[in-house]
This record gives sequence, C-alpha cells and structure tokens, in this order.
Amino acid sequence: MASLIRDRAVTSAEMIAVFGDETLVAAALRFEAALARASAAEGIIPTAAAATITQTCAETTFDLAVLAEEAAHAGTLAIPLVRRLRELVAAHDPSAAAFVHYGATSQDLADTALMLQSEAGAELIRREGAALAEALASLAEAHAETPMLGRTLLQGALPITFGFKAAQWLLGVDAGMRRFNREADGALACQLGGPVGTLAGLNPAVAVRLAEDLGLVAPPLSWHARRDAVAGLCASLAILAGSVGKIARDVSLLAQGEVGEAREPMIAGRGGSSAMAHKRNPTGCQVALSAALRAPALASAVFSGLPQEHERGLGGWQAEGPQLATLFELAHGALAAMAPVIAALEIDAEAMRRNLATAEVGGDIGHAVVLTRAAITFTRRDT
Amino acid sequence: MASLIRDRAVTSAEMIAVFGDETLVAAALRFEAALARASAAEGIIPTAAAATITQTCAETTFDLAVLAEEAAHAGTLAIPLVRRLRELVAAHDPSAAAFVHYGATSQDLADTALMLQSEAGAELIRREGAALAEALASLAEAHAETPMLGRTLLQGALPITFGFKAAQWLLGVDAGMRRFNREADGALACQLGGPVGTLAGLNPAVAVRLAEDLGLVAPPLSWHARRDAVAGLCASLAILAGSVGKIARDVSLLAQGEVGEAREPMIAGRGGSSAMAHKRNPTGCQVALSAALRAPALASAVFSGLPQEHERGLGGWQAEGPQLATLFELAHGALAAMAPVIAALEIDAEAMRRNLATAEVGGDIGHAVVLTRAAITFTRRDT
Amino acid sequence: MASLIRDRAVTSAEMIAVFGDETLVAAALRFEAALARASAAEGIIPTAAAATITQTCAETTFDLAVLAEEAAHAGTLAIPLVRRLRELVAAHDPSAAAFVHYGATSQDLADTALMLQSEAGAELIRREGAALAEALASLAEAHAETPMLGRTLLQGALPITFGFKAAQWLLGVDAGMRRFNREADGALACQLGGPVGTLAGLNPAVAVRLAEDLGLVAPPLSWHARRDAVAGLCASLAILAGSVGKIARDVSLLAQGEVGEAREPMIAGRGGSSAMAHKRNPTGCQVALSAALRAPALASAVFSGLPQEHERGLGGWQAEGPQLATLFELAHGALAAMAPVIAALEIDAEAMRRNLATAEVGGDIGHAVVLTRAAITFTRRDT
Amino acid sequence: MASLIRDRAVTSAEMIAVFGDETLVAAALRFEAALARASAAEGIIPTAAAATITQTCAETTFDLAVLAEEAAHAGTLAIPLVRRLRELVAAHDPSAAAFVHYGATSQDLADTALMLQSEAGAELIRREGAALAEALASLAEAHAETPMLGRTLLQGALPITFGFKAAQWLLGVDAGMRRFNREADGALACQLGGPVGTLAGLNPAVAVRLAEDLGLVAPPLSWHARRDAVAGLCASLAILAGSVGKIARDVSLLAQGEVGEAREPMIAGRGGSSAMAHKRNPTGCQVALSAALRAPALASAVFSGLPQEHERGLGGWQAEGPQLATLFELAHGALAAMAPVIAALEIDAEAMRRNLATAEVGGDIGHAVVLTRAAITFTRRDT
Repeated sequence: MASLIRDRAVTSAEMIAVFGDETLVAAALRFEAALARASAAEGIIPTAAAATITQTCAETTFDLAVLAEEAAHAGTLAIPLVRRLRELVAAHDPSAAAFVHYGATSQDLADTALMLQSEAGAELIRREGAALAEALASLAEAHAETPMLGRTLLQGALPITFGFKAAQWLLGVDAGMRRFNREADGALACQLGGPVGTLAGLNPAVAVRLAEDLGLVAPPLSWHARRDAVAGLCASLAILAGSVGKIARDVSLLAQGEVGEAREPMIAGRGGSSAMAHKRNPTGCQVALSAALRAPALASAVFSGLPQEHERGLGGWQAEGPQLATLFELAHGALAAMAPVIAALEIDAEAMRRNLATAEVGGDIGHAVVLTRAAITFTRRDT
Repeated sequence: MASLIRDRAVTSAEMIAVFGDETLVAAALRFEAALARASAAEGIIPTAAAATITQTCAETTFDLAVLAEEAAHAGTLAIPLVRRLRELVAAHDPSAAAFVHYGATSQDLADTALMLQSEAGAELIRREGAALAEALASLAEAHAETPMLGRTLLQGALPITFGFKAAQWLLGVDAGMRRFNREADGALACQLGGPVGTLAGLNPAVAVRLAEDLGLVAPPLSWHARRDAVAGLCASLAILAGSVGKIARDVSLLAQGEVGEAREPMIAGRGGSSAMAHKRNPTGCQVALSAALRAPALASAVFSGLPQEHERGLGGWQAEGPQLATLFELAHGALAAMAPVIAALEIDAEAMRRNLATAEVGGDIGHAVVLTRAAITFTRRDT
Repeated sequence: MASLIRDRAVTSAEMIAVFGDETLVAAALRFEAALARASAAEGIIPTAAAATITQTCAETTFDLAVLAEEAAHAGTLAIPLVRRLRELVAAHDPSAAAFVHYGATSQDLADTALMLQSEAGAELIRREGAALAEALASLAEAHAETPMLGRTLLQGALPITFGFKAAQWLLGVDAGMRRFNREADGALACQLGGPVGTLAGLNPAVAVRLAEDLGLVAPPLSWHARRDAVAGLCASLAILAGSVGKIARDVSLLAQGEVGEAREPMIAGRGGSSAMAHKRNPTGCQVALSAALRAPALASAVFSGLPQEHERGLGGWQAEGPQLATLFELAHGALAAMAPVIAALEIDAEAMRRNLATAEVGGDIGHAVVLTRAAITFTRRDT
Repeated sequence: MASLIRDRAVTSAEMIAVFGDETLVAAALRFEAALARASAAEGIIPTAAAATITQTCAETTFDLAVLAEEAAHAGTLAIPLVRRLRELVAAHDPSAAAFVHYGATSQDLADTALMLQSEAGAELIRREGAALAEALASLAEAHAETPMLGRTLLQGALPITFGFKAAQWLLGVDAGMRRFNREADGALACQLGGPVGTLAGLNPAVAVRLAEDLGLVAPPLSWHARRDAVAGLCASLAILAGSVGKIARDVSLLAQGEVGEAREPMIAGRGGSSAMAHKRNPTGCQVALSAALRAPALASAVFSGLPQEHERGLGGWQAEGPQLATLFELAHGALAAMAPVIAALEIDAEAMRRNLATAEVGGDIGHAVVLTRAAITFTRRDT
C-alpha cells in the first residue's frame, strides 16, 4: 500500500526504506553483478563480460515509476529490469549483453533480492531487539524487589514484584529474538537454480560463489517451490511481534487511571488527543498492539501458500514478498515503539503498594526475587 | 509497504491512488469542511467560521512526507493535520480557528476518511466486477453446448460443457459482488461521535447532516469500537478475491500443456519468461491466485480485532486501515487481472473434445445446457 | 478433536450434539431417503424402491466407531454408509438396492448433511442470540441515565452512561445476528448435482423437490466447487463471536478490582480458583474471549480454500466441515456464556460515579441518553 | 468437535487418543502425583501424604462425561478433578487431602497435562516423519536419473529428473521435522508457578524436580502468560503440514489423467467414488491438502493470543489447547496419509519421457542428478 502516512504509523522510516523500491532495485542489481562474477569465475561467461556487467550495474539508475508499470505488465520485475540492463551493457560492449542474467530465472532474482532486503531488515530487528532486551533487563533488575499485585484472569491474585513481571517480558523478547535469529540463519539464503532449479547452463559452484559474494547462505538445492524457511522466518517475526504486544498489553493495563502503576514516558507531541487536552495516550503500546494483531495473519498466509505447484509455483511465492516485508515492518515498528517506552517507563511504586494493600492478599515474594535475577542471567547465555 | 513495484504487481494504479496519501488527506479535509458546515447548520459554530474552514480546506496542501512523520510521532494523523489547518484558518480569521474539528475526535476523522476512500474503492470494484461478470456471461452463453471433461478430485469424471463451468464461475462472481454491495451498504458509514461517541458538544443532527454531505450512511450510533461492519466488508472482499481465484485456478489448470483446453490471451509483453522464450505464463491467473492467498488472512486480522476496549480501543481499530486498503487492492487486482483474461480467453474446443474422448466416459449434458442458461438469467435478477 | 472435556469448555452440550456423529448419520440418512422420494416423484426410480429406501433409512443404525474407520479408509463417509444401506435395502427388496444414492455423488451427501446440521445449529444460534439481545436491551434501558466514565485508548476520557455502552454492545449483537441470518439464508442450501454437478441421470426438478423435502434452499446450480456461501456463513459466525467478545472485553475490564464497576453474577461453582478462595473469575468472559480469538482464523481457512479445482476440488471442501462446525460451536459457546452474564450482571453504579468523579472530566450526556433509546428502537426494526 | 467420523477423516486413531479425555485425565493425575513427590522431596509436604496421593492417583478413575460437565461449569478442569482427588485421598488419609495440588494453580495442571499429551503426540510425529523422509529418500535415489518435464507457473519448462523433484520434497520434510524438533525441545516444558507464577508456598527446586519426574523441560520461569514457545510449536506443525501438502499438490497434479506420470498406489477400498466405478481418487493427497489448508490459521490464532494479560491471562491461553491438539492431528494425518503414498507411489517413467518429448524442450540434467544425491546426503547430517 503506497501510503507513507499509513506505513509510518506502524514502522520506522528505516524499515520502510529497506523494503522500498530503491533498495529492491539495488538488490536486484547486486544479484546480477554478483551472478556475472560468479559465472565468470567458473568459466561460464567471459571475464570481460562480467566486468562490464558489474560496472553497468554500479552505474545504472531506473525510473522507478516506469519500472513498476513495466514489471506489473510483464508479471515479474526481472523482465524489464534485465531488458534495460542488457541495453545498457550492450552500449558498452554488445557481446556482453547476452551474459546478463545468464542461466538465471526471474525468481532467482526476486528471491535473492528479497533475502538481501531481509538481511538488512534483520539488522534493524537485531538492533532494536537488543535495545528492548537491555531496557527490560535494567527494569527487571531495578525493580526486582518492588512489590505489586499479581493479576490473573484480570483479577487481583497474589503479590509479585514488578521486576518479576519485567523478567517475564524479557524472557519473551529474548526467546523471540533467538527464534528470529535461528530462522533468519536458515532463511536468508541465496536463490540460484535457473528455470527449473537444476542449474542447467550453470553449475553448482556458481551458486556457492554467488551466495558467498552476497553474504547469504548457500542452500543445498534451489528453493523456488520449497518455502518452509520463508514461512519459518515469517512465523518468527509474528511471534516476536506478539511477545512485544504482550508487554504493551500489560503496560496499557497498568496505565489505566484506576490502576496508575505505570505509564509511558512523556514525549513532547506524542500520545496527545485531538479532542482532550488532559489525555496521555499509550501510543507506543498502540503501535505494538496493532502490530501484534496484524502480524499473525500475515504469517498464516505464507503458510497457506506452501503447497506450491511443481518446480516453481503460480501465485504462491509471488504472494510472499509483501507479507514478509510487512512482517519486518510490523515487528520493527513494535520493537521501536516499545524500546523507548520501557527505557523510560514511569513507575509508581507507591501505587503498586497501595493497590496491593487494597487487594488484601498476602504471599511470599522471596522466590520471585531470586527467579527474576536468575532469569536475567539466563537471557545472557551464549547459545 | 511503500514499494510501488510490489504494489503494482498486485493491483491497479487506480486503486493505489484511492488509498494513497493524497486521497487520504483530501478525504480528511472533506471531513473537516463538511463537519464545519453541518455544525454551522445546527447553530453550533458560526456560519462565517464554517465558510472560512471550507475555503481553507479547499486551498490547503500538505507536504505529505512531513505530515507522515508528524502523524507517526503524534500517534494519529488528526493531530498534525488539524494543527496545520487551524494555523491556516487563523491566518484568514483568527476567531474561526477554534471551530476547526470542533467536537470531533481523531478517530472521527480517521474512520470517515477511510470510508470515503473505501467508497471510491467500491466504485472500482463494482466497475471491474461488472466487467468480469459480463465477460463470464458471454463465455457461458457462447459455450453452453461445448462439451468437455468434467474433473473431480483432479481426476477425469463425466462430461460437462464449458459453458456450465463458466456459469459456475459467473455465479461465484455474482454472489461475491452482491455480498460486497450488501456489506458496503452497511459499512460505508460516516463516523462522528466525538471523544467517547456521545456527540457531546455537538448533536445527533450534525452527524446526520455530515453523512448526507459526504454521501455516506448515517449510523444509529457512532461505531468507534463496534467494528463488525468493517469486518463484514473485509470478509466480502476476501471472499470475492477467492471466487476470482477459483476462476484462475481452473484456467491455469486448463492451460497446462498436457491439457491445453484454454489459455490466457496473448498480450504483448505479458506472461513472458526471463529465461525461456517459448513460455507463455498465465500471468493474470498468477495475480488472482496470489490475491486469493493473501486476502483471507487480512480479513481474519480484522475479525481478531473486534473485541476492542471500551468506547475507543487501543490498537484494534488502528490496525484496520491497512488491512482494508490492502483487501481493496487485492480484490481489485484480481478482478482487473481476470476480466481481460476471460474476455479474450483462448478456447480450444477440439482439445476439450479430444480429452473427453480419451477419458472414455459418457453421460448426459442436456441438463447442463439448460442449467447454464438458467444460471445466467439468475444473475440478471434485480435483488 | 474427540475430547468432550475440551469441547464442553467452549460450547454447549446441545451444539456438540448437533455436530456429533449421530446427527451426522441421521442427516445423511434423511438425504438418502428424501433423494429416493424426489427421484421417484420424477419417475426416475420406482416408487416402491423409494418406499423401501425411506423405510430402511428410518430403521437403520450404525456402529459409529466402525463407520468412522471405514469412512476414513475410503476417503469419504458416503462409501461405507451407502454400501451398508444398500445391503439393508437389498434384504427387504433386492431390486431396490441399486436405487440407493441413485445419481448422487459423495459430496451431495456430505454437503447436504452438513447443511442440515447447520440448520439445527442456526436454530441454537438464533435462540441464544435473541436471549443475549434481549438482556442487552433491558440493560441499556435500565441504565440509560446511569453516568460512568467513558474510556478511550484505555484512558479515562469523558462521561457516558452505562446504558450507552450497553446499547453499543446491543447494536453489535443485532448487526451480527442480522448478518448471520442473511448468510444462513443463502448458505443453508441443498446440494444435488451428481458427480460433476450436471444432474446427469437425474433432472433439475429432483434437486428442487429434494430441497423442499429437506427444508433447505434450492440453489441455481450445484455448488460443489463454488463455496462463497459457506465462506460467508463462516465469516458471519466469526464476526458474531467477535461482537460478543467485545462485550466480554469490556465486562472483564470493568470487573478489575481497581475499577469495580461491574462483575459477572455469582453462580455456585463457577468462576472459582483452584488456588485462591477469594477469587471470582470472569468465566463467561473467558469463554467468549477465547471464542473470539479462535474464530477468525477458522473462517480464514475456509476463505483460503475457495480456489477449488474444477467441478469438485481436492482437499478444499473436505476442509470446510470441521471449520464450520467449530465456528458454530464457538459462536454458540460465546452467546451462551454471555447471555446469562448480561442478564444478571452486577452493576455498581456508585463505583461508576466515583471513578467518574475521580477522573475530573465533564461533558454532556444528554445526547447519549437519547441515542441509547433510539438505538434500542433501531434494533427492533423488521428488516 | 466431538465427531469421530470427522476426526478420523483427518488424522490417525492414535493421535485422536493422545488428545482424548482419557489421556488428558491420566496426564493430569501424573502431574498431581509428581507434584506431591517433588514437594515431599523438598520437605514442603509430608512424605506419607505424597505416597497416599501417588497411590490414589494411580487408582482413580473418572466418569469423563460428568467431569466434562463439571469442568465446563467451573471454567477449568482442575477444580472438579482436584476436588474429587481430595475426596479420594481423604478416604485413605484425611490429613493428606490438603496436600493435593498443594501450591499449584489450575493452569499449572492444564499446561503440564497439555505438554505431556504433546510429548506423546511428538513421538507420533517423529515416527511418521521419519517414515515419510525415508520413503522420499528411496524414491529420490531410485529416480535420480529418470528424466521428466520440469514445470513452472503450471507450464512446461525444462527437463528435470523425478529424483530431483523427490529430493526437493525430502528437503522440505527434513527441514520441517528439524524445525518441529527444535520447537518441541523448547516448548515441551513443565509448568509450575502457583497462582501468579512465583512459586509462593513452594520453591524453585520443586519445579525442577517435577520437570525431571515428568520428563519435561524445566523452564527458567513459569510461562503462564509467556506463550511464544507454544506459538513456535504450532508454527512448526503448520509449516510441516504445508511441506507435506506441497508433496500432495505435486502428486495430485502428476496424477491428472492428461499427465499420468504418477499416481497413488491402489489400496483396496481407498480412493473409490460413490458414483463412478472407474475413478481412483488421490485420497492421501486429499487428506494432506486439507491439513495444509486448515493448519495455518490454527497457528495464527495462537499467535494472536500472545498479548495475554498480566500474570495469567483471560481467554488467551485457554484458547491454545484445542488449536495445538488440532495441529498435532492435522500434521500427523498428513504425514500418515502421504508416507504410504510415497512408499508405493506408482511411477510411469514412460509417460514422463513422453510428456517431456512432447514439450520439445531441452536442457542439461547432469547437475540435477548430482544435486539430488547431495541433497539426500545433506538430510542425513546429524545436527
């Protein structure tokens, strides 16, 4: 959806750029240049052609609006992009033009470009995930012994500490980031198989060289119609968004006027109301909760597309790019919204004590304190 | 997702524009101007102020990139938009500035603007849906008596006619369009309730006037946290996309080389392969099948958001806009992809007869012919 | 999932019975008997055979565990059921056995039986939906003028009345029931088309007679691979569950100890805690919120299956029965959980006033009172 | 849904039993007995009481229909189960009754029982996944050099080998099983935290002992409201079902009469038609494709429930059990349907050659052969 207003409401400008057209085309050109180099290294195309192609890719620019129209008409981005690239290469060296995109298929370009964008997206997720985890660990440590009312089924139950609650949030983010990294390790793979995935006209070593050049994983076979890794990556982003949404749920419940135990930090111009000057809306929580609502279904659509037809399917893999991009956007939006909220969360420990006293429940919190500290340590393990 | 290349791969330039930022801001300004007029007509704000606001809305332009940043920061579009509008109104008439957005809340603006965009989107859906239905009816009529092999569980079964198959497609589109129109009739409603939906500071007649001015339905109460109509509209778009996807599924199966009974019309530059010159890919089907894969989950996320909190929820309604916009885009993309495919579908009646003969199955098709014609007539009923 | 404990946690014993095996087999036998009668009336099979078949269907019983195994092995219920029915009919009249299931296909039986079960399920939904709507209307009337704090984005905002809130809930249920009835009107259709839907060997009049006999809609064509009506029915159940979930969300938030404005009625043995004697859990809300969480995705899977293959698809329609049955169960479970909660909801009007006063916000509630009464009247309209 | 006919249509009798009520109650009693032992070992309850509780759990039986009603009324299984267990323990030793369920909460029992059932379900998944993988590896090896037409976008493209196609299927199942095992390793955890997760009244060592006794993972903290591991497990099952569905998609396309390159093995009484004696339906594929359609949304509902409230949420975790159980059933159903299909798949290598020749496309398959063998080896790696 080409609405910057709607996109920026849910994610960062950085992540929008990662999945924007400029980055997409740059990734496509990286693919074409690296493919030429890998093919030349294997003696499949002339070294001079590879040099010309690499050089042309570095210089080429596209009118993105025109390219979008042409790609829509052709049914794939590769066709107009490769055609134009061939023209430009031919202008330097007519004999090199035939070696552009040599042996590759449209989906090789599409999938590899998507994974290059995803790699950049993963960096942003890792950065923001680390920031949120660090803020949560600090919060859990600072309030390891701050008593508050534990609540179950939305009813007051027994005492906990605020640090214990924060440690639970932290464990959720920690597990979410570990799952994301695990899935990204498998999914951020290079795609090169040619029309039916057999590397006909190329050879397996080209695929390995290409992956190395681009900094992506070299898979055992091309994965044109075998999409579980993409599905796993989507799942990990949706689950991560859900774990951040859990924090937002709790913070927004604690921020209710009648509870008053925590609230989002005051940031000038944020969380206001167009109608009520006295209001301070939990805007970070809003972003995270929206993300947690939207993300699950986006992943499930990718799961639904798994039974793709034969060597390269019809409609299934083409549906994945927008879903994956939106998942990166939502997960990053949620992380980027909640990291500063947690880093500067306003805690009212007195209200916590008051609500606990009002509830007239008692119980030991000693284990909670010990467990909180153990949980923080647990998240710092290596593997 | 701000990628024109990805968006254009799945929908029309027209529908992208309908849900683009310019249209959004124009709709927001229509809301503010119409609200001022309705409030003035009810004596709630001065007539002169309403005139100034109307005039200013007509003249105002926004730097959309800046607005997107400000809206993201504020947590809602209304805040920066209303602020700037007040400044501009104040430049004309300082006393009028306070009457901008008078009595309204951010969500009044957001929901009404979304419905104005949806009304424009609905026009495109209706136009393309009618084109597809017409093409299907023609096809069904033309081939009412063309025998072919009926297939069940992907195995040859008994004879049908191609017209019978087309009539089934037609009934699906017809039912889909009727459901869409029914849901749109209910959902394309004006939103005006003020902060908690009670029209405090305004009055019920303002809401009725506003709806009339904007050409939207006047609902019995504001619907800030009662979102079933939006959910119903989303469902209708997803189901419509699925019914178009059904056509695409069948066409793509008939177009398999070994079957060869139908194929997409040849359109210069469409359906080619970046690697294989001999290929003619079913690109229209690809677009429709992708849409049918992505749409269901988008609707379900809106369903998931229904249990919104209190008078205006946190995160739920904010999640709907992107889902609804994408659903309009996908449904329109599917319709616009398949209408020309059906209008010029290449039929090989001889291959149909050959495959039927090879299957060595017999059975009466007389009822199929009669039923086909009755079904076409059925779709022409009024209600 | 054959766990009565898990099923009863989410729905009524009545609805479990409606979608249980005894009802399924009874519906299948109703189909076979009515088909025989309709075919005899059209002179397609002998009247005596129809009488024998009808009589046998009335007397036949099945070992359901054995039938389940045989159906699983065959890939469809119809095969073992029809085989056994033929044996029993043959015992009465060997010449009649060949006329069992005459001209029909497995899916005719499966779909019609599912719709007969759905019709019974619809009755339960209508009964419980009416009970909930009535309880909501009473609540809205009784508290039309009871002031309370309106809350937006989980923050205190401006005054409303409790009746206004209840009227919003009522409108959601009313719209949900109307959508359900509309979709049920279209979806509760008879299925009879024979192997490829053409009524080969039968005739269109048999289909009409069969529908009349069974009290189901006679569709313009068989709908073996045209499933939008099933999808629409699923959507309506999911949306209804969501609208009930909205009530549960609000009640559970009002029942928080710190808010204390409403709580579920005390019912002996319900809502207790296995660990904390002082707790009173909002168990009705729990059931409704769980239903609202699970229902959306169930509907979306049915949407995903719409692009079915050719005349009768592979896997798609077979996936619908369990989804539709579970949706009926969840929607009924939600209605049945919340109707008694609303009918006897404990309201603390004094707490409402206190929380409103503490929030220090003011605003007119006069329109809210008027709108509340108008909304109640609106839900009593005929169409 | 308590329909054995519908359940057996989609999964094995074994998996139905794993998630049936007898297994559930047995798991709940294992939890109570192990909890008593662990608490006694830590000196929290008397050793004699633990012995009596263990003994009583071993002897106790329940009327499951009554228990289902009582659990539905109470809102949780634990309440009636623990009540009855206390009565029975009291009959042996009145002083021991108070130590039943000591320190635990309903959700401790519910979650641990679910994980014990899941552990049993995981064994079935692993067994059937290994059988399918083995059959695929054999198929890939046997046909490593059997040429066939590669197909992309449902159009003939270039040659592959059938072994290459089978190797792709194998990689999908292999990756799916590895993801499942990874997620199961994390998710199959013991739950013990008491009312708010703090082990108040118990101590952390009890939780560790309990986990050891039951053969489940001991988590760093109780996970009552931190559900990412359950979500990850659900995702892995849905993705696995999708990867099996991919095989079914391809097999069913190859089995089309006009293609005729492969078909499901003939099994007496399976895949027949109630109307057409000549048909041989791909019933195994049907089961797997239905599973792949239904599974994604089931997982997404669990993702949607992640933002649960506070220490133990309302409605979210209660929604997970049925979703997870159904996912185990669908994944196992898909595996169990396709393993015998693949093990005895009827291949028509001559038809493959003929279709390839008809397509008039050429290309090298040498790399395909090498890659196929490398892929098989790859799936045999240890980690």
